[in-house]
Amino acid sequence: MSFSSDFSIPVRIYIEDTDAGGIVYYVNYLKYMERARTELLRDKGFLKPAVMEEGLLLVVASANINYRQSARLDDELQVSADIVKVARTYIVFDQRIFRGEECLTTAEIKIACVKRDTMRPAVLPPRVVKLLDS
Amino acid sequence: MSFSSDFSIPVRIYIEDTDAGGIVYYVNYLKYMERARTELLRDKGFLKPAVMEEGLLLVVASANINYRQSARLDDELQVSADIVKVARTYIVFDQRIFRGEECLTTAEIKIACVKRDTMRPAVLPPRVVKLLDS
Amino acid sequence: MSFSSDFSIPVRIYIEDTDAGGIVYYVNYLKYMERARTELLRDKGFLKPAVMEEGLLLVVASANINYRQSARLDDELQVSADIVKVARTYIVFDQRIFRGEECLTTAEIKIACVKRDTMRPAVLPPRVVKLLDS
Amino acid sequence: MSFSSDFSIPVRIYIEDTDAGGIVYYVNYLKYMERARTELLRDKGFLKPAVMEEGLLLVVASANINYRQSARLDDELQVSADIVKVARTYIVFDQRIFRGEECLTTAEIKIACVKRDTMRPAVLPPRVVKLLDS
Repeated sequence: MSFSSDFSIPVRIYIEDTDAGGIVYYVNYLKYMERARTELLRDKGFLKPAVMEEGLLLVVASANINYRQSARLDDELQVSADIVKVARTYIVFDQRIFRGEECLTTAEIKIACVKRDTMRPAVLPPRVVKLLDS
Repeated sequence: MSFSSDFSIPVRIYIEDTDAGGIVYYVNYLKYMERARTELLRDKGFLKPAVMEEGLLLVVASANINYRQSARLDDELQVSADIVKVARTYIVFDQRIFRGEECLTTAEIKIACVKRDTMRPAVLPPRVVKLLDS
Repeated sequence: MSFSSDFSIPVRIYIEDTDAGGIVYYVNYLKYMERARTELLRDKGFLKPAVMEEGLLLVVASANINYRQSARLDDELQVSADIVKVARTYIVFDQRIFRGEECLTTAEIKIACVKRDTMRPAVLPPRVVKLLDS
Repeated sequence: MSFSSDFSIPVRIYIEDTDAGGIVYYVNYLKYMERARTELLRDKGFLKPAVMEEGLLLVVASANINYRQSARLDDELQVSADIVKVARTYIVFDQRIFRGEECLTTAEIKIACVKRDTMRPAVLPPRVVKLLDS
């Protein structure tokens, strides 16, 4: 059972993304990674509202991000999202940001399934696991 | 009946606020103005949830903003919020951003009261108007 | 001489764009409008660095924005940018945001040409005016 | 030689900080942590421009962040910044975000000193190390 996907989206850098250092504000890479995860899930037919209907939420439990090089204004990046683990109550993504062949940033993002009212861990619905494994 | 207030809050500029031009990203001034409006309302004892309990929402209907000078990293600004009009279904704020004696930005912001479900205009509750006029 | 363009770009709404009201945070529409202006200028062969080489900057001088309806998570919007006036020292854009046939937001944005060192008004280079009029 | 500091700043949560989940957008916690690091350094008499004069930059090399609980609109948080290591070319911060007694988020942030032109690792100036150790 493998969850690898080779999925990526393009992200163009606008002035809103930069900071006074003349480079992309480092916090924003996490936004691009979330956009890629969202599109990967959409691509698999996974609609967030469906989870929320069952009183569940998917939330970021941890992020471990490494910065190698900085992106700049007008850069066109590729942002990948790969599912590397689907556990009972969480999903782990491996994500990378490229400018051409050059890898600028890598991250491991853990997404937890929680109950909406208590925010406590909840088991991922079988239907969701099935979609992720497609 | 006057709604003037001479209310202002300090805002420190961090790297998150800047862009590659080395100045504050112009869109962010609207955030500082909203912080000032929020604190002005809090100062008057006005709690948003109270409005929402009645199925109402306060939303920005229009913003008219003029930029004179730019703020820079580490600047300490003062952001004012003055209520210049309270109408049946909306409130108009006059807002200014200062760095010392220098006025960097001015704006007129119109906040409308709407029904949460239909997003159509709603009459401001008398209780709210009373607070605004304190 | 007409500067109308009928130019627009698609913008997808992600969780980063929303606020606790469950809708797009109203300040963010100005970001989408800037993306559209940037792509319009890029489409016309206009590269910002070219202006900056001459010691000039293009900055937002004023924004007049009206909100009619709110966008929501996962919406796919169209954001237009039309040049309605090119004066000696500034450009005026008319911008609209649509969800399908519905117009959510309109704005008039004035972009001024200034000297990088003094931030005082400067005449738009003839080369730039020519590109804008293509 | 110890670099612990027990330094923290207050951060108020505004609508700009939240997302459609009704909670603080998780990426924003990294902004609050940077505000706290900036104020800690300012408190120690460390001014960024001083480093930049020597052709150096301080950049985030990695961030390892864990989310336990979510903050909500109008929360007043405390954000701490402690220097746990000063190496030849980098600094490690331990950071925590509290709502009252409750710890919402923890992170380890590594800040690297790099040469501005090449973005390659550079030795932290002795003057800077001295300030950090005050």
